[in-house]
Amino acid sequence: MSVPNISTIGVFDSGMGGLTVLKSLRQYMPDVNLIYLGDTARLPYGTKSPTTVINYALQAVEILLEYKIDIIVVACNTASSVAINCLEQRCKNVSIFGVILPGAIEVVCNRWFIKPIGVLATEATVRQGAYADAIHTMEPSAKVVSAPAQLLVALAEEGWHDGEIVEKILSKYIDSLIYQDIETLVLGCTHFPVFTKTIRQLYPSLNIVNSADTTASRIANTYRGIGSGKTTFLVTDSLERFKRVGAYFWHNSMNDIKLVDL
Amino acid sequence: MSVPNISTIGVFDSGMGGLTVLKSLRQYMPDVNLIYLGDTARLPYGTKSPTTVINYALQAVEILLEYKIDIIVVACNTASSVAINCLEQRCKNVSIFGVILPGAIEVVCNRWFIKPIGVLATEATVRQGAYADAIHTMEPSAKVVSAPAQLLVALAEEGWHDGEIVEKILSKYIDSLIYQDIETLVLGCTHFPVFTKTIRQLYPSLNIVNSADTTASRIANTYRGIGSGKTTFLVTDSLERFKRVGAYFWHNSMNDIKLVDL
Repeated sequence: MSVPNISTIGVFDSGMGGLTVLKSLRQYMPDVNLIYLGDTARLPYGTKSPTTVINYALQAVEILLEYKIDIIVVACNTASSVAINCLEQRCKNVSIFGVILPGAIEVVCNRWFIKPIGVLATEATVRQGAYADAIHTMEPSAKVVSAPAQLLVALAEEGWHDGEIVEKILSKYIDSLIYQDIETLVLGCTHFPVFTKTIRQLYPSLNIVNSADTTASRIANTYRGIGSGKTTFLVTDSLERFKRVGAYFWHNSMNDIKLVDL
Repeated sequence: MSVPNISTIGVFDSGMGGLTVLKSLRQYMPDVNLIYLGDTARLPYGTKSPTTVINYALQAVEILLEYKIDIIVVACNTASSVAINCLEQRCKNVSIFGVILPGAIEVVCNRWFIKPIGVLATEATVRQGAYADAIHTMEPSAKVVSAPAQLLVALAEEGWHDGEIVEKILSKYIDSLIYQDIETLVLGCTHFPVFTKTIRQLYPSLNIVNSADTTASRIANTYRGIGSGKTTFLVTDSLERFKRVGAYFWHNSMNDIKLVDL
């Protein structure tokens, strides 16, 4: 069976966390064109109400639809957890991919649901219970426990990804899940993959689900990228900060970057 | 000389940090009515561009002007550092007080400018150089050194105000200023007064300028409050989170709280 060709993927996030998804997409699909929209004027989404996040996501998708895109990736767990249905209603002709379902599928396919599954996420994603919902659809018996870890977003953006302070903060959050007997940890925020190495050192036996990587891998298995490998960045505010802080997540050059109004 | 009577103060902040100013105002002026507007839909301001912060501040002040208020306090260092002039232009009949100038006055009046003065603030306040400007107007010879400490905002909102992790993070930021020979530390973000006790324990000989307290004290010296001591809260999003996280800064009940649209 042949996979459909696509030339351009629109990627949307509240700010820079989604750059971890962009980076994985670029690794899996070197030829596809990527247009990334970071809503830096209104980040973070993780502490906002569902209604507000849905409104912001709809506006962001309108911008992406002005470009010739084949699919849209919502590279933000918070927006994925509340806005996917509304976005699908809005974009009948463009497929929408969130970052929650691929992580849930990885848990289920690996049969990592015998023991409780831990989810580390923003306040909004935890409150929404999106990972538990997605996992339960496939495996109703699974037990999902969550820890809101809002501070990790600021820590990731500060560029503190390892060292003693980071280890202590990660331990404080993750230990609360370990006490609930987890064997698998879902990094349920696209900022969090930057801590993967440190978490592996601290908890070598934990199964780690990186939602950035699982999402990109799923898309790369579904489509063949046939573009010119161009990457464009659109931000709604603070272009200079986006370049500086975004470097912690993207690790590549950012040549084509524009300010857009939302 | 008698001080003018006022019945209602409008207090505006990007979210909940300004509640430290509100708390100090309530302590100094038990009778005045306080209307607090927290722009929780769009927090934080500290990572946003001046243009965006000015637009947000103008919109927030429009809401406050719908109420019968006598003065406005901009209880946010970021907004104070970029938007005060624009707000004064907009509100010709209502006095506007920011939180930067009172802190600068305290430094100068105490003659704490012989050694370098350290400022711990958000990225936007540091970039703007607002404390240095305010201090230099009064004392051009003063040397001001700054550290952007964005992570402390998230830490304050997480309710982590003391303990080992907090001490290590505070030390990492403040030591970078200590190495520059500071003797005085300005807490240049209204979130930061919650760390005062921990900072005093870590650095007992440091002069600490708490911009929430100095601002409230200055206003209490300028006006006599003659209201009924009522406190009203307006928020632009996430009412439940505002109550929960706001408790870390306000330490009082929040009975009268409404959602407003900006």
